[in-house]
Amino acid sequence: MVLERLHIYNSLSNSKEKFKSLRKGYVGMYVCGPTVYSDVHLGNCRTFISFDVIYRYLKYIGNNVRYVRNITDVGHLEDTGEDKISKKAKVEKLEPMEIAQKYTNSFKETLKKFNVLDPSIEPIASGHITEQILIIEDLLKKDLAYESNGSVYFDIRKYNMTNSYGVLSGRDLKKIKSNSRKLDSQDDKKNEYDFALWKKADKKHLMKWTSPWGIGFPGWHLECTAMSNKYLGDEFDIHGGGIDLKFPHHDCEIAQAVGYTGKQPAKFWIHTNMLTLNNKKMSKSTDNNLLPNELFSGENDFFSKSFSPNVIRFFFLQAHYRNELDISEAALIASEKGFVRLMDMIERIENIKSIKNNNDKLLGLIKDWENKCFECLNDDFNTPMLIAEIFNSSKLINDIENKGEIGEREKNYFLNIFDTFLNKLLGLTFKKTNSQNDLILSILIKVRNQARKDKNFEISDKIRDELNQIGIKLNDND
Amino acid sequence: MVLERLHIYNSLSNSKEKFKSLRKGYVGMYVCGPTVYSDVHLGNCRTFISFDVIYRYLKYIGNNVRYVRNITDVGHLEDTGEDKISKKAKVEKLEPMEIAQKYTNSFKETLKKFNVLDPSIEPIASGHITEQILIIEDLLKKDLAYESNGSVYFDIRKYNMTNSYGVLSGRDLKKIKSNSRKLDSQDDKKNEYDFALWKKADKKHLMKWTSPWGIGFPGWHLECTAMSNKYLGDEFDIHGGGIDLKFPHHDCEIAQAVGYTGKQPAKFWIHTNMLTLNNKKMSKSTDNNLLPNELFSGENDFFSKSFSPNVIRFFFLQAHYRNELDISEAALIASEKGFVRLMDMIERIENIKSIKNNNDKLLGLIKDWENKCFECLNDDFNTPMLIAEIFNSSKLINDIENKGEIGEREKNYFLNIFDTFLNKLLGLTFKKTNSQNDLILSILIKVRNQARKDKNFEISDKIRDELNQIGIKLNDND
Repeated sequence: MVLERLHIYNSLSNSKEKFKSLRKGYVGMYVCGPTVYSDVHLGNCRTFISFDVIYRYLKYIGNNVRYVRNITDVGHLEDTGEDKISKKAKVEKLEPMEIAQKYTNSFKETLKKFNVLDPSIEPIASGHITEQILIIEDLLKKDLAYESNGSVYFDIRKYNMTNSYGVLSGRDLKKIKSNSRKLDSQDDKKNEYDFALWKKADKKHLMKWTSPWGIGFPGWHLECTAMSNKYLGDEFDIHGGGIDLKFPHHDCEIAQAVGYTGKQPAKFWIHTNMLTLNNKKMSKSTDNNLLPNELFSGENDFFSKSFSPNVIRFFFLQAHYRNELDISEAALIASEKGFVRLMDMIERIENIKSIKNNNDKLLGLIKDWENKCFECLNDDFNTPMLIAEIFNSSKLINDIENKGEIGEREKNYFLNIFDTFLNKLLGLTFKKTNSQNDLILSILIKVRNQARKDKNFEISDKIRDELNQIGIKLNDND
Repeated sequence: MVLERLHIYNSLSNSKEKFKSLRKGYVGMYVCGPTVYSDVHLGNCRTFISFDVIYRYLKYIGNNVRYVRNITDVGHLEDTGEDKISKKAKVEKLEPMEIAQKYTNSFKETLKKFNVLDPSIEPIASGHITEQILIIEDLLKKDLAYESNGSVYFDIRKYNMTNSYGVLSGRDLKKIKSNSRKLDSQDDKKNEYDFALWKKADKKHLMKWTSPWGIGFPGWHLECTAMSNKYLGDEFDIHGGGIDLKFPHHDCEIAQAVGYTGKQPAKFWIHTNMLTLNNKKMSKSTDNNLLPNELFSGENDFFSKSFSPNVIRFFFLQAHYRNELDISEAALIASEKGFVRLMDMIERIENIKSIKNNNDKLLGLIKDWENKCFECLNDDFNTPMLIAEIFNSSKLINDIENKGEIGEREKNYFLNIFDTFLNKLLGLTFKKTNSQNDLILSILIKVRNQARKDKNFEISDKIRDELNQIGIKLNDND
């Protein structure tokens, strides 16, 4: 069966592997979610759209998928300046959870615009303190962690005696060592490369909890281990995230999980690549940065026009998730054109006269093409290849158009494939918008055409001018 | 100042009291949110719409409001039958958090349809285990709680030595005692009326956490104390919820909080009343039940037509939040008519010819009316009185229409009041929908009018017929 041929590039083995879930028909997938202290980054949107397609495809091929994507609301607090806020008047101060709520809401709204499906569970990091403490206690018991001055660190040297830290990124400890000197609280650590499981909270910290080691807060790496383990178990199928999380975040996750459960947590690690803007890294500090809403509204310093979430999604999917992608006006305009071309293709099929007779040979050709489309997704969710393959059907459409007719069965089958790949799997909205809006407009255009035929240019010009005033431009061919 | 005259009915004193916040310009408000194990109840929607108006008004009169509304995802688990679900295959089983996520999402979508604003913080009960354990430890230390067989109970007899349990509901302990015999785990308790702060989890329980008393889960009452205290402090301004929560939930909250902090947690307690359906209590077991979506779609056994969220919201607000309200087709249709009448009133004002001259006398009359409107909301958020007062302005509109003109200043002021009360404060969408749809339609109607004037009945009839075909009927006066 074509649906059983899925291969996924596994970052753990650096190779494409045939995908087989741990339990037949069930897939557990964990994806590192956003940190909700600012508007979601466009690069993150690309990541979540990529995993949305993966989620859709895994479900489509018959799996019951439990997709867990967390919300990080604790762990990145040091630089936000909460110390300025009065602690006496709880209502008056800027409560971190108010900020987290605000950006969680805006994150979800943005992903809705991109037509990203809700995951099965969206756990919140600060909501899993108990679970994190439990893991730390276990690691302490196993001597894989040590307490130091109210903080607890993971003991990488100790872990390395029986395991291998850095299996995902392939970094060796010497290199890590030389890069980790700048971190704070070095004095508390046995080794510079050790990472915090629990950090003592100083007075300026607003988000803090009691623990066996005093008042503090959990380390960022730990939350994902706690939540993936809680909702997906010791071993699950897929762990994903942006490539920037591969090291140290995911390597730390692996070390924690292996220490805690004795098992590699995820069978497949999937990493999405970076999004650049005009060939430069996006970054708030250099102003080479673009928010999704700025792109939707067109109100930004980079592009002369707005782009719909639908077109941006299409643009993202025209690149493979493992490749770097550069966003630029020219590229977006090209995608927009491609998008229209695809819509035209659907309309062309719809417009071919349908007849009752079946045509087995044509159905066979359509099915061959369908299989090729599936093979693209089976090849590590290769969406650009899939989109190219969909464009390829243009030749087939030409042939049928030349014939002037198509069997009803074949037509439905053909249109159905478009619907499956474009709407259901790529998550694009390629349906014709037969809204009342369009219907009223089509009446107006009909009336205008009639008026022009009758040489009643007063009416036809009036319609053109009035429509022009509300932003609808008609060609003289309309 | 009229805005400083707000009085709120305080369930704690059973009387209307002048509202004064603990800190000038800042209001902390906690409202008990939904339990996310099924679709949100229509009665709950009424509650959250009532508090939405309260939230909007408190902000409007100049307060910085921190509005906390929790999500209850733990505490009501016993009857859901999770024991049937395989515990081995974590992915395969029906994970409680998946259910919680699903119904949290659908709850939020429903409230969005009702135009309910997002609260400042929406904390999740299961995300505050650490905080709940902390309170239990404190109560144990103070001997206000006792451990028994892995569970911890609040010791009401002990609490009553220095405090008074049941201050909100006014129930005396004897009555409570006689009603609490049926609860489970009675053997663990010193007194039947004691309530659980922490319950030992038996094997069938899926949602459980480690605690100093073993594996278990927190009591339902405790979560609200933990979350309101965390985000609003020991003392805050308003605590709200449905009237069914007054006892035991809110009385337990008070006992816990007083025990923990030594202070009454909320200055004002606001309780919203019940919604009945065709004069009977809504209940799933008797099938006298209606979900919001069934009401929006019209697909239900009770009503012959659908009603928009906007009209339902208006219907709810035509009753005072402290009164019981019965939902019936006749009542909804009456509200729908009232809604249209209000829209007409706005349009009538818009259609009066505006002139440059100011009219101080008229402005005075409008401002008098405005003050009356504010006084309605100042009187315990009396929305039905407010709506009646808005209808009263019809006389004023008549007078101005008879005059045939209105000063531009007066017109703007008048329309602005409508916008303030209907859109901003009651949260209804009373704006004219100048969508492109309407604009195109208006062009079509203009063209038709021109054609009729020109006696070009071919075109005018064609437009009428075509519009008729897509369900838009024109009168000959159009």
